[in-house]
Amino acid sequence: MTESEPIREPEDRAEAARVDAPAGLSRRGLLGLAVGGGVAGLAVGLGAGLTGGVALGRARAAEDAQNSYDFFGVHQAGITTPVQDHLHFASFDMMPRTDRDDLISLLQDWSYAASRLTQGLEVSASGAVGGSPEAPPDDTGEALGLPSAGLTITIGFGPSLFENEDGDRYGIAAQRPAGLERLPAFLGDDLDPEMSHGDLCVQACADDPQVAVHAIRNLSRIAFGRARLRWSQLGFGKTSRTTAAQATPRNLFGFKDGTANILADDTAALDEHVWVSAADDPGWLAGGSYLVARRIAMLIETWDRVRLSEQATIIGRDKGEGAPLSGGDEFTEPDFHGGAIDAHSHVRLAHPTQNDGVRILRRGYNYVDGNNTLGRLDAGLFFLSYQRDPAQFITLQRRLATDRMNEYIRHVGSGIWAVPAGAKPGSYVGAELFA
Amino acid sequence: MTESEPIREPEDRAEAARVDAPAGLSRRGLLGLAVGGGVAGLAVGLGAGLTGGVALGRARAAEDAQNSYDFFGVHQAGITTPVQDHLHFASFDMMPRTDRDDLISLLQDWSYAASRLTQGLEVSASGAVGGSPEAPPDDTGEALGLPSAGLTITIGFGPSLFENEDGDRYGIAAQRPAGLERLPAFLGDDLDPEMSHGDLCVQACADDPQVAVHAIRNLSRIAFGRARLRWSQLGFGKTSRTTAAQATPRNLFGFKDGTANILADDTAALDEHVWVSAADDPGWLAGGSYLVARRIAMLIETWDRVRLSEQATIIGRDKGEGAPLSGGDEFTEPDFHGGAIDAHSHVRLAHPTQNDGVRILRRGYNYVDGNNTLGRLDAGLFFLSYQRDPAQFITLQRRLATDRMNEYIRHVGSGIWAVPAGAKPGSYVGAELFA
Repeated sequence: MTESEPIREPEDRAEAARVDAPAGLSRRGLLGLAVGGGVAGLAVGLGAGLTGGVALGRARAAEDAQNSYDFFGVHQAGITTPVQDHLHFASFDMMPRTDRDDLISLLQDWSYAASRLTQGLEVSASGAVGGSPEAPPDDTGEALGLPSAGLTITIGFGPSLFENEDGDRYGIAAQRPAGLERLPAFLGDDLDPEMSHGDLCVQACADDPQVAVHAIRNLSRIAFGRARLRWSQLGFGKTSRTTAAQATPRNLFGFKDGTANILADDTAALDEHVWVSAADDPGWLAGGSYLVARRIAMLIETWDRVRLSEQATIIGRDKGEGAPLSGGDEFTEPDFHGGAIDAHSHVRLAHPTQNDGVRILRRGYNYVDGNNTLGRLDAGLFFLSYQRDPAQFITLQRRLATDRMNEYIRHVGSGIWAVPAGAKPGSYVGAELFA
Repeated sequence: MTESEPIREPEDRAEAARVDAPAGLSRRGLLGLAVGGGVAGLAVGLGAGLTGGVALGRARAAEDAQNSYDFFGVHQAGITTPVQDHLHFASFDMMPRTDRDDLISLLQDWSYAASRLTQGLEVSASGAVGGSPEAPPDDTGEALGLPSAGLTITIGFGPSLFENEDGDRYGIAAQRPAGLERLPAFLGDDLDPEMSHGDLCVQACADDPQVAVHAIRNLSRIAFGRARLRWSQLGFGKTSRTTAAQATPRNLFGFKDGTANILADDTAALDEHVWVSAADDPGWLAGGSYLVARRIAMLIETWDRVRLSEQATIIGRDKGEGAPLSGGDEFTEPDFHGGAIDAHSHVRLAHPTQNDGVRILRRGYNYVDGNNTLGRLDAGLFFLSYQRDPAQFITLQRRLATDRMNEYIRHVGSGIWAVPAGAKPGSYVGAELFA
């Protein structure tokens, strides 16, 4: 199962030939054809003449028009998109002996599949049931009949993709952004290398976990022979918000989390803190961002025995409303001068006014992965943040070295990726890197 | 953290004294007071005078009246209840040196908490934020502001609760149902004891995973010193349906699953196949059922390379519609005589006509728990079934010994529990066992 396994397209797709629509997936070069008219044209074209799996896809797309996001655009979706309810995050490593063409074809095939999946379609025109009965289906089928459920697929490039112990495998070492390197060790780090790092990442967010899981599973399958899963993480109960209309969710400490997040309509803040600008270096990443993932285990049974007033002191906010301890409501600016908020509270140490104005866009999820042999839930926060420069995260995380909360958390996983701008219609994520 | 940790009730709950409402949780005896008026009276009483956490709870209950289920009733909820979107299942073992009173008080406290949680309330009147600031809150708080989300909590008793290597710890060995014993070994079993068995189980189902997780976490916390988590499992994308209005969902093989399930309105079938009758032995289990859980790992990457026609042959149904290969639509009865359906297909071997009419009520969920070091998703079906007699499951599972599907699955976890009838208002789950 280590060799390349392209998803097969049946030879005799007479229906496909009758419409101006993609012929399906392949390892090389079909992408230009596939999305020549942009994804809107693609969906319409598909609806016009095909049957079987595509008909199912069409029905789904129609039902779900209110809750689907274009894969193509100025920025990748899944960053400022209103945070969906569920996450399946996957880190991939490229396979040994793959070359630049393999990497480009993988990004093309992923982009093509993602452009369909995010519209509630199957990964190809023949999909789960419309292909030859004598071939394995292109699509694994568990999302048949489900809407797109707000699915976004966001792809990033890790430091090791540019250069690793095997050298400059893909001829892109010179294009590595200076700031894109493994995060420095932070005080208290307890990282599991098997839950950290990776050449590539795919963040799939959706309002239905089966839709997010289906996306990661099928992208993993498409990658066979070129890349394979290194680690993956499911999450739920979004712990951040990206629009003012979303209520601030609670993390597993029971506190509201994300009150002061950067919101999608604050374009000035996004330009200042999240999007890499055309003037930044490197140019190929303009319109992109840097993604940091941290798997933060919470010692919730220990936390649960802390008295309420102490919990509030640690966070710097009250538990019910989420108001700063200096007074007001959830959205009142904290006052760090009156002494009501502890100097080592989380809210103070993380606050922009205490960090030269540094802000990040948070997009994390809660997770529970069973329990350990002592009967403690293996639970915590899968922290995701987007920023214009990795230095923003590093500054904040160093500042949190004296956070009172550290007694109750442990960083056990870590990764960083450069997230390119959105793909242009007809192109693929990261095309500028290979131009 | 092995000693008993009752959840504390602050001494000076002046507000609580002003209304005819529960004073909160305790280790002993408060349950009769707490739910004296039944859960409906309880919820109303609570809404009348308390503030803080309870006010939040009241708002939730009002919003959510359409999607909440009584904990008290003839049968436990969570069996015929329309299958919710998410599962958190937990198996518990009693702690060493616990006695009959510990077990009874645990069941009382769980029942009390469950009667509140299922109504969108916190675990006690003081809840997450309404208690003394100098005490740890009764409720962990991450469900504050969330609706009850259709939460059901279903409690069961494993064979080892009645008698284990330490003997008859709770004076109930003589009440053990004859059929309640560890399932026999089945061909191909590859069980992990750390994901199998358990003295007690709690099945929490809800349409929001954070609500289900909150329930298991808080019931675990309430159990401190008396019982502790042995293993737990999250699931999503319900793979069965219990009402005709629910579309048949798909498992991770991409096929519809649960087409022929027993539905909630088929009371004759429920009486025949699911509910223990008053004439069955033992009498204390009348109105209850037996729950079987099987963690069935799916080798999905292998399955995904099987050609479509072969997949259909293995299942005995087509992949798109879920119609039997003998023709018709999803709900057409399969015809096993014409030769269209393979003798070793799953649908044939599991069909009641091939098993002397044996049927079970299925209520399983899909799961994905990260991936292994080869990059394969750790994914499959968390199978749950309810039946009047464990022999029903054993008959079917033995029949499946020659199932073609066995090449692609592996049973890695197993458990069986007697699930008592629903608790009477003011009483607790299993009271009949201790009468």
